[in-house]
Amino acid sequence: MNFIDKLNNLIEKNNSLVCVGLDSDVDKIPKHLASKSGNFQLEFNKSIIDATRDLVCAYKPNTAFYDQHGVGGLQTLQETIKYIKDNYSDIPIILDAKRGDIGNTNLGYVGYAFNWLEADAITLHPYLGKEAMQPFLDRVDNGIVILCRTSNPGAGEFQDLLVIPSDPPAGGVVEGSHAAKPLYKIVAEKVVNDWNKNGNCLLVVGATYPEELAAIRKIAGDMTFLVPGVGAQGGDVEKTVKAGLNSQKKGLIISSSRGIIFASTNADFAGKARVETRKLRDEINKYR
Amino acid sequence: MNFIDKLNNLIEKNNSLVCVGLDSDVDKIPKHLASKSGNFQLEFNKSIIDATRDLVCAYKPNTAFYDQHGVGGLQTLQETIKYIKDNYSDIPIILDAKRGDIGNTNLGYVGYAFNWLEADAITLHPYLGKEAMQPFLDRVDNGIVILCRTSNPGAGEFQDLLVIPSDPPAGGVVEGSHAAKPLYKIVAEKVVNDWNKNGNCLLVVGATYPEELAAIRKIAGDMTFLVPGVGAQGGDVEKTVKAGLNSQKKGLIISSSRGIIFASTNADFAGKARVETRKLRDEINKYR
Repeated sequence: MNFIDKLNNLIEKNNSLVCVGLDSDVDKIPKHLASKSGNFQLEFNKSIIDATRDLVCAYKPNTAFYDQHGVGGLQTLQETIKYIKDNYSDIPIILDAKRGDIGNTNLGYVGYAFNWLEADAITLHPYLGKEAMQPFLDRVDNGIVILCRTSNPGAGEFQDLLVIPSDPPAGGVVEGSHAAKPLYKIVAEKVVNDWNKNGNCLLVVGATYPEELAAIRKIAGDMTFLVPGVGAQGGDVEKTVKAGLNSQKKGLIISSSRGIIFASTNADFAGKARVETRKLRDEINKYR
Repeated sequence: MNFIDKLNNLIEKNNSLVCVGLDSDVDKIPKHLASKSGNFQLEFNKSIIDATRDLVCAYKPNTAFYDQHGVGGLQTLQETIKYIKDNYSDIPIILDAKRGDIGNTNLGYVGYAFNWLEADAITLHPYLGKEAMQPFLDRVDNGIVILCRTSNPGAGEFQDLLVIPSDPPAGGVVEGSHAAKPLYKIVAEKVVNDWNKNGNCLLVVGATYPEELAAIRKIAGDMTFLVPGVGAQGGDVEKTVKAGLNSQKKGLIISSSRGIIFASTNADFAGKARVETRKLRDEINKYR
């Protein structure tokens, strides 16, 4: 089954657009776990997964929180993904890796994400263009999630720059900034109209910018967006949902990490994560 | 010692601007090595390093060729870097990882690249902006290498888009495409004028686009460029050197990978790699 079908099936089954970000920063993991022997980052992840599995549409581990610990971290990442696959095989896994190299080299990351780790989807930078990303785009059954408008405060430095479309109107007359549009819209247009031949593309659009989310929805038809930035980063749920839903009342993977997985730093962390996941799911569904 | 000083010292000592890319694709490694037991990717790297160590200004392993093999690959990458540090500690190591996440998350990659792997420099995507890249930019002694104009055939899809500068001339009148410039120049300007407060920034500029290289040199003063794309990708050495040198007749790290490390697939691969490295070094020096 391809990524989008797997995702939409689980959205239906769990009635949820919530993705839990497994950004399991070991410095924030509850102290009672960290003081135990064994792999406490993995134990933490398993507890979070067990506590939220029926409330989510996806899990999204971010590679930075595992890469940081070298070989042991990578092993934890692999075992976390394997745990989900072995126990909850209908939950899609988005590897938040934000990679992107030149064509041939990307085959290495394809092998890493989809063969070795067996993730279902991966996040990518658009800067090198479609030709470079082809090894990912060729993966018909995987989700290829392109950074479009990110959730960080400084995202606009390049993403909001006004670009003169490369296909100007007939006559070649470009009338100043009226004809121009922000770079993130150009990225959205290219992905929607040109990169998505296999129907496997998604876009990253931060919840911290609901107006941009609405603008990108106009460009993107029913394409699914990965939306980080609710919770700790301050994105507004109501605005996000109203701006971002597609015509099927889906099309959004709303990701929260710290607000869920570190809701409590005590022994009740998994229970609190469940409470927060349910709260976010229900709040989202109120506006669907 | 900071990265740029380490680099410039070795450029002087080895009279070389050549960086060998350790893109050690296991499918291309000589068969006689691959048929042996043990870690043949590591043995291959060690042989290449031993054979070229006095002819280079840096080594550049690309993480994709290691990530692809999971835990074992990451171990090989670590041991390759350790081998260089233990035996040739004056050679700077550029981790070609092309990462880039939001601010806090980048601390994970900082830990990965500089604490765990102990690389000297890392390559990064600019798309999320300076605010997100701050954890890297704060690493005064490391080289922070920002993708500006890449060497791949499709690089222009976004990098060549004409952008209206965000600080338009007084009066706000922007006269069509005359006032606009390609995105890669804006990236160069931002990195040079704003990101480089610690003097630790470099730019990636592909050898396959010597005119763009010349244009970026005009913007960048004496900043050092990492220049992939000579050799297998077809970049012209003479044009690259003439377009790219800075006022110290340095400022270029000219990277070749396949053309050197896979110059032969027989038992003489290391000797042939040495011949090709020397040839490239001497050809570059002819135009310095």
